[in-house]
Amino acid sequence: MIIDRLYNSVEKYGPVCVGLDTAMEYVPEEFLKKFSFSDQAMLRFNQEIIDATLDVASCFKVQIAYYEALGLKGMRIYKDTLEYLKSKGAIVIADIKRGDISKTAEMYAKAHFEGDFESDFITVSPYMGLDSIEPYLPYVENREKGLFALVRTSNKGAEDIQYVDTKQGSKVYNIVGEKIHNLGSKYLGKCGYSSIGGVVGCTHVEEGIELRRNLKNMFFLIPGYGAQGGTADDVALYLKDGNGGVVNSSRGILLAYKKEPEGTARFAECARAEAIRMRDDILNSVNR
Amino acid sequence: MIIDRLYNSVEKYGPVCVGLDTAMEYVPEEFLKKFSFSDQAMLRFNQEIIDATLDVASCFKVQIAYYEALGLKGMRIYKDTLEYLKSKGAIVIADIKRGDISKTAEMYAKAHFEGDFESDFITVSPYMGLDSIEPYLPYVENREKGLFALVRTSNKGAEDIQYVDTKQGSKVYNIVGEKIHNLGSKYLGKCGYSSIGGVVGCTHVEEGIELRRNLKNMFFLIPGYGAQGGTADDVALYLKDGNGGVVNSSRGILLAYKKEPEGTARFAECARAEAIRMRDDILNSVNR
Repeated sequence: MIIDRLYNSVEKYGPVCVGLDTAMEYVPEEFLKKFSFSDQAMLRFNQEIIDATLDVASCFKVQIAYYEALGLKGMRIYKDTLEYLKSKGAIVIADIKRGDISKTAEMYAKAHFEGDFESDFITVSPYMGLDSIEPYLPYVENREKGLFALVRTSNKGAEDIQYVDTKQGSKVYNIVGEKIHNLGSKYLGKCGYSSIGGVVGCTHVEEGIELRRNLKNMFFLIPGYGAQGGTADDVALYLKDGNGGVVNSSRGILLAYKKEPEGTARFAECARAEAIRMRDDILNSVNR
Repeated sequence: MIIDRLYNSVEKYGPVCVGLDTAMEYVPEEFLKKFSFSDQAMLRFNQEIIDATLDVASCFKVQIAYYEALGLKGMRIYKDTLEYLKSKGAIVIADIKRGDISKTAEMYAKAHFEGDFESDFITVSPYMGLDSIEPYLPYVENREKGLFALVRTSNKGAEDIQYVDTKQGSKVYNIVGEKIHNLGSKYLGKCGYSSIGGVVGCTHVEEGIELRRNLKNMFFLIPGYGAQGGTADDVALYLKDGNGGVVNSSRGILLAYKKEPEGTARFAECARAEAIRMRDDILNSVNR
């Protein structure tokens, strides 16, 4: 089960997930100038960030939207970034939030668990229901692949649907969480967590405690640290002894160089320093 | 407003939307053999289907998953198919069901409303809330682009989330429908419908009547005809005098040749005949 690999990686390197949501404008201009083509620069930027954070992060999350926005050229950078991560033995979460059914979902599974865009985990959106997740299950069962389904996100608009009160007295996200948790219980790793995890934003303290208690087998992908207002103490509530989840930071790490004097010349070093600071910040809260 | 273009196209050509969910195995083998590369054959297959249905369909829906599944090669076929449709003046719905927030959603907007993968409409998934739709609005307002948000889908699993009863006595899909409808009311075309439409499957008769009544300004993208069990009479309930929605058929049209004697040699002709049959079937029900 892929979840054991991720669990062990968190044990070894800590819960930081480096988010490669790389926009072309994040690449420092003086670095860009070294290359004949901007796409070479963007790929190389990713590679340097990866090299600098490989032993201080448990995994990497690649946000496909940033690459799609560059068209065919971007999709090639996406592919090359995934391949580089694979060559380094890194665990990759493709943040694609796909959500469709039957044959279409089979096609998405093929697209992101095989071939050019192969990754270890993908994020999925559950609005269409559990049959939008079924086509991925053979990959979870037989091919060392995993999923993170959206459960409760950290944005303001999460209120619109996820927080709607249901007749039974819970909220929509509770129902989604339970359904994903039940499904996930069939795909447990030795670590006790499932290869079908959930995306839960780290913004509400009480909910963190509740979700960790109710969704025992669910491994969390946690956005919202730093930029979106989540603190290490918040994050710690979603973890169990510092494991059971990974905490994503994208711009906080990629753009750490902007906060340092003459940081542009050493963006990778700054990214590493920020990943270490974040890891220690979270582990300190966990151990408090 | 792009919705006026679509509305007028339905007036002129009828409500059929041709779904280019093209898998490589749909391309007849003897056609495939004519080409040195399979991607050339798949693109040419799409082009022949497009040419044969251009004046009997209001629009085309391209399901990106089928192209993603072929990796970089597939993304090029996707781009070339969109460009061909554009060169023919066709209206294109990119069925991408993206759903993400802020900067990421901006990137998706850039990806699918500009550049290599530009289309007229995209489908979006609303689970993250209305702020997952905001980044597309400048394109709706100023650049003749439109959206179809998932409201109620036609698959079995729709029960899992969309049909959950809420405290207020409605279902989750009603809440989603209302929110999208309210947002859409700010983007009405001269035809009275909004450039922010909704995806509603045509499977339940009572709901068809209810949705058409309650979501007055919402233009529908309707899957589920034929293969998924929806009849022309069902579909008619979602339309108003034969407009106010488009009805998608993908495999029904693409694979029509499989039902005809020696159909493989004339797959485009068979697609055309099926699109005409479907159009007339629906319009007969509307006029009954």
